[in-house]
Amino acid sequence: MRRIRIIGIGAGNPEHLTLQAVRALNEVDVFFVPDKGAEKAALRELREEICRRFIERPGYRMVPLRIPQRAPAGSDYRGSVDDWHAELAQAYERLFAEELGESEVGGLLVWGDPALYDSTLRIVEAVRARGFALDYDVVPGISSVQALAAAHRVVLNRIGEPVLITTGRKLVEAGFPEDQGSVVVMLDGEQAFAGIAPEGFDIYWGAYLGAKNEILASGRLSEVAEEIKRLRAEARAANGWIMDAYLLRRRD
Amino acid sequence: MRRIRIIGIGAGNPEHLTLQAVRALNEVDVFFVPDKGAEKAALRELREEICRRFIERPGYRMVPLRIPQRAPAGSDYRGSVDDWHAELAQAYERLFAEELGESEVGGLLVWGDPALYDSTLRIVEAVRARGFALDYDVVPGISSVQALAAAHRVVLNRIGEPVLITTGRKLVEAGFPEDQGSVVVMLDGEQAFAGIAPEGFDIYWGAYLGAKNEILASGRLSEVAEEIKRLRAEARAANGWIMDAYLLRRRD
Repeated sequence: MRRIRIIGIGAGNPEHLTLQAVRALNEVDVFFVPDKGAEKAALRELREEICRRFIERPGYRMVPLRIPQRAPAGSDYRGSVDDWHAELAQAYERLFAEELGESEVGGLLVWGDPALYDSTLRIVEAVRARGFALDYDVVPGISSVQALAAAHRVVLNRIGEPVLITTGRKLVEAGFPEDQGSVVVMLDGEQAFAGIAPEGFDIYWGAYLGAKNEILASGRLSEVAEEIKRLRAEARAANGWIMDAYLLRRRD
Repeated sequence: MRRIRIIGIGAGNPEHLTLQAVRALNEVDVFFVPDKGAEKAALRELREEICRRFIERPGYRMVPLRIPQRAPAGSDYRGSVDDWHAELAQAYERLFAEELGESEVGGLLVWGDPALYDSTLRIVEAVRARGFALDYDVVPGISSVQALAAAHRVVLNRIGEPVLITTGRKLVEAGFPEDQGSVVVMLDGEQAFAGIAPEGFDIYWGAYLGAKNEILASGRLSEVAEEIKRLRAEARAANGWIMDAYLLRRRD
C-alpha cells in the first residue's frame, strides 16, 4: 500500500510551516510537484526554499508533474473542473505507479490549507477510487485567509456572528449576501469588490499574503476601492501575477 | 512602548505550532495566562507542554490572569459580551502596567487561530483604546476547523462553492441556511445538529480535535446523529468538558 501525505505549507511565509508539516516533509521519499508552466516562478522558489531549509533527510526525489490545461469554464464551471480533475487523477496515478516504490511515501505540497479551495484531496481520492491502492493523510496549513487576518490584526467574525468564505466569481454572480455581515473573498480574478455598492462596507485587502512582497490596504470600501484597484494593477504588472484575498464587512 | 504578541498555538496538537509561533514564543518575556478556574485542566497541561517543549530561552515569566465570569447572555448576547470584554480590558491593562517592563514583550497564547471566535484581539485593542501605549501583532495558528477537515480528509468547500463558519447558537436560531451547502459549526454547547431535519445532510464531526483523545464520526446525519450525541455525552462525562466542531454538508 503506497502512502501519500498531503501537506499544507502555508500562504507564502516559510515560517508558516507547522512542526507537523516539517516532520511530514522529512518522511517523504518522493515529492510530486507541478511543473514550471503551471506554477508561478515565485511560488516555485518559495517551495524550493522550504524544502532546502526544512528537509534534513537526504536522498528525497522531486518528480515533476505536468498539469494539463483546464478547458475554459463557460457555463458549466463545475463540469469543466470535474473533467480536469479526472484528467489530473489519471496523470497522478501513472506517476505514482511509475515513480513511487511499494513501501515509499509520496508527498504533495499544497499552498495554504488543503481544506480550502484546493483540488489535491479530490484528485488523490479520485486516484484511489480508480482502484489504485493508496493510503493518504492531510497536514493542515496556514491559509491566506489566516495570513490576511493576522496581517490586519482583525478577527474574521463579528462577536458571535458567522463568516462566509467565498470566491470572487460568486460575489460577482450573487452580490454581497443580504444575510451576512462578514465575507472573505478568495480566488478573485475580477476585482469583484468593485462591483458592490461601496457605502456601508469596510474592506481588509492583501496580496502575496505572508510573502516578503505582501501588500495590505484597508478602510471604508468607498474610500479605498480605487487605491486597491491601482495597487493590484501595479503589482500584477510588476510581478506578472497576483494572488490576493480580502474580508468585506458590513459597517454597523 | 510595550509590545504584545498574540500567538495562535493550534487546536490541541502541540505540533500544530508554526515555526513563526515557536520563534514568537521565544521572544516573549512575560506570558499572561488565564487562571485555573477559567481554563480547562487539559488545556492548561497542553499549554504547559508547549512552553516546556518549545521555549528555549530561559527566564520567561508566567503571570496568571483571573478571568471574570461572564454574565448570562439572556436576550442581549452581544451586549453581555461587550461588557465582559470591557471588564477584561481593565484587568489586562492593570496587569500589563504592573508586570510588563517598558522594553519587555508580553505574550498571549490563543487556542486555534486568534482570527476566529476569540476575544483576545478585541480585548488588546480595547486596552490600547483606553490610552495604554502598546503595540501588538498576531501570529496565526491552526484552528479546530482545520484540524477537523484534516482529520476527516475533507475539503470544507464544494468545488467553487462557499463555506459558512458559524456557531451552534446561530444554527439553533436560524436553522441550516437555505442558500448554503457547506456549514462549519463551532462553539456548539447545544448539539444544534440534532435540531435540523437530518435527511439530505452529511456531517463530519470531531471533538478534542488535534489532541490525543480526539474523537471523530461522520456519515449521513440521519444515520449518525444519535451516535454523535452518545459519543458526545460519554466524552463529556468522562472528561468533565468537551470542545467539538463539525461540518454539515447538503447532499447532492
